[in-house]
Amino acid sequence: MPVRPHVVIVGSGFGGLNAALRLASAPVDVTVVDRDNYHGFWPLLYQVATAGLGSDDIARPIRAVYSDHPNISARMGTVTGVDMDHRSIELDHEATIGYDFLILAAGSSTTDFGIPGVAEHAFPLKTLPDAVRLRNHVLSTFERADADDPSTADPGQLTIVLVGGGPTGVEMAGALSELIGHNLAGDFHHLDLTKARVLLVEKDDHLLPGFAPKSQEWALGALRSKGVEVRFGTKLDKVTDDGVSFEDGTSVASRTVVWTAGVRANPLADLVNAAKGRAGTLRVGPDLSLGGHPEVFVIGDLAAIGGRDGDQLPQLAQVAIQSGRRAASNIKRTLEGKQTKKFRYSNHGIMATIGRRSAVAELPGGVRFQGTPGWMAWLGVHLIFLIGFRNRVVVLVNWAWNYLTWDRATRVILDDGSITPTGQPRV
Amino acid sequence: MPVRPHVVIVGSGFGGLNAALRLASAPVDVTVVDRDNYHGFWPLLYQVATAGLGSDDIARPIRAVYSDHPNISARMGTVTGVDMDHRSIELDHEATIGYDFLILAAGSSTTDFGIPGVAEHAFPLKTLPDAVRLRNHVLSTFERADADDPSTADPGQLTIVLVGGGPTGVEMAGALSELIGHNLAGDFHHLDLTKARVLLVEKDDHLLPGFAPKSQEWALGALRSKGVEVRFGTKLDKVTDDGVSFEDGTSVASRTVVWTAGVRANPLADLVNAAKGRAGTLRVGPDLSLGGHPEVFVIGDLAAIGGRDGDQLPQLAQVAIQSGRRAASNIKRTLEGKQTKKFRYSNHGIMATIGRRSAVAELPGGVRFQGTPGWMAWLGVHLIFLIGFRNRVVVLVNWAWNYLTWDRATRVILDDGSITPTGQPRV
Repeated sequence: MPVRPHVVIVGSGFGGLNAALRLASAPVDVTVVDRDNYHGFWPLLYQVATAGLGSDDIARPIRAVYSDHPNISARMGTVTGVDMDHRSIELDHEATIGYDFLILAAGSSTTDFGIPGVAEHAFPLKTLPDAVRLRNHVLSTFERADADDPSTADPGQLTIVLVGGGPTGVEMAGALSELIGHNLAGDFHHLDLTKARVLLVEKDDHLLPGFAPKSQEWALGALRSKGVEVRFGTKLDKVTDDGVSFEDGTSVASRTVVWTAGVRANPLADLVNAAKGRAGTLRVGPDLSLGGHPEVFVIGDLAAIGGRDGDQLPQLAQVAIQSGRRAASNIKRTLEGKQTKKFRYSNHGIMATIGRRSAVAELPGGVRFQGTPGWMAWLGVHLIFLIGFRNRVVVLVNWAWNYLTWDRATRVILDDGSITPTGQPRV
Repeated sequence: MPVRPHVVIVGSGFGGLNAALRLASAPVDVTVVDRDNYHGFWPLLYQVATAGLGSDDIARPIRAVYSDHPNISARMGTVTGVDMDHRSIELDHEATIGYDFLILAAGSSTTDFGIPGVAEHAFPLKTLPDAVRLRNHVLSTFERADADDPSTADPGQLTIVLVGGGPTGVEMAGALSELIGHNLAGDFHHLDLTKARVLLVEKDDHLLPGFAPKSQEWALGALRSKGVEVRFGTKLDKVTDDGVSFEDGTSVASRTVVWTAGVRANPLADLVNAAKGRAGTLRVGPDLSLGGHPEVFVIGDLAAIGGRDGDQLPQLAQVAIQSGRRAASNIKRTLEGKQTKKFRYSNHGIMATIGRRSAVAELPGGVRFQGTPGWMAWLGVHLIFLIGFRNRVVVLVNWAWNYLTWDRATRVILDDGSITPTGQPRV
């Protein structure tokens, strides 16, 4: 059997997954490298953190996705080096993998913008263990408050501060207020939950950047009607074990600071000697290849992709999916001796959910939904895109159950003593 | 409002849960103390360890179980002292809780019988974090084997040794052989899985103590037909990082030793100054109260309860459930000025599953089922007893999906780096 071209894809998120599946029937061998053995459905991560879904419900084993495609292999590992001259990548454990084509799809990671204490005391929400750790922590603070003598109660114990008014912050705020108001209020017969606060702080003067002003205002009203406090123009000064302080000199006592504000390119980008875009992303040409390296493509959150207006495209699942497919198709075209094609992003809309029958959705052409219609749109789209039929059924059952009963069945503290929140040893 | 008698229940397993629910409408205040905030459905723990069910599917939040019963409160904590003279228990964090009646229902825990290396190198399977850790580890060994150069392969990497031929060992062996033979075989396109071994070692000459010899033989044949190696009369000498050695001088290289052999009473029993039964259990009178302390009851796995033939009753969910209800009823009778009643165990049968359409079940009166009928009985009973409707639906969906597709959708390595198996740092 002749040796077939080897395509290595780094990352199995929305971009890497769709690139790999597009190459399933192509005359190439594909190796997908990921630090995890699962594909996470990250738009629903906040539901794991707020006990709406189980941790396994939003994860699909990578090998299961590719089991019917014998030309695709999976490899667990973290990339520690990219040698574009010799066309190879290096993994931890000192393994080296050669490639003929490389697709970099490692996504984004959290950055603390150098704000003191964020790394030590704030909870990130980018990975599945992050979500489980945050769920454990939030539930543990309520357990602790219930056990404590009220006269000596820790003032910040039941205050949750969410930093960043993007979709994750907004969705977390809405889901937390429902978790506290509907579920924990029933769980704790003696604890006064009117003292619990959810505070969302945003440095700009609006929520949900990228959405229309009317959607932003609607989301703000919806959050406030749920009892979420929202503060604008509030920049963090530092985070400590006791709470947060802001640049305007004010501070808030809190044992739970969630950091959703800082997103930058995966550190993999720093290993690649190439021009950078916003937040450490890698600049690509119109066909998504790296300058001077037509065999290397960068897609999704890791790439600085220019949109029609010249601006860099936002970090959205749809950008990752579509750019992954385009990169794969361009590899196939190259092998067929054809010219690569330009990537054109097709806008399918954006949406964010605030809670039960409460969401904003914007479709192309200026069509906007909010409230129940927005929520129905959100539900449908997320179920359609949730990878793996079994997960979709389980998630649907969970949602139907949660909706009908107001229950959040996974409010379980799964802690073996080692899953302790960073810098939060006292709870 | 007059002060009502305070009943403290330590442990919210099958026994404690059923005791509390029996007291839901009684004129008492109930506090349930548990180290976790969830009630685990332990008969299905092995399915979490073998990726058949998600970790949250078999856990139901304790507070959710009691949310409709205002006289029942929950408290997370570990009991560090029992002062029967002053009628109080002490929790970690130095809290003290007084009681009028006490029900000890803390269940059983693992013991290594003093065999060297078990605590450091073998995986226990008693708790939810245990199951997730074992699942992470088993899946990681196959990932590692796939990445390794075959010429330098670690001989014990794909050998799993299960110690103990009770229901947990038998169920794990069957489920592991299906996980490897059906799921991992499809996941790994290049790895030779005929080299993978599942070895079940038992010190006696039969599996499933307490079952009829015909059931034991049927289970043995069913396991062997699935490729499981079973060795009898094999006592452990020690466990190391590289494998196990036996008292007969033989040894087996293995990176995954699962210890299901040693069960003893929860260490709580050691805090109580009272006569002991088998494996550290607390001896109780016919009404389940502790000698000299008619206000203290011990139930379930923690109690040495005499059966009709004078033998100590086995550690079964049904014994825990029924003894929990009896203890609660006896408290109610005492408050009403009536005599307590003797506990009478009603045998509802025993069962163990070997895998897909393969189980043994024994009902009272000598009725035995095996194969598909045994499996149907097992399915039905487990679904009926699984606490919480939502869990039941999710588990049913998972099982139906697994059955129809041979899939095991949760083969996800959920590891944040801190959830590493004890003493198994190399995988």
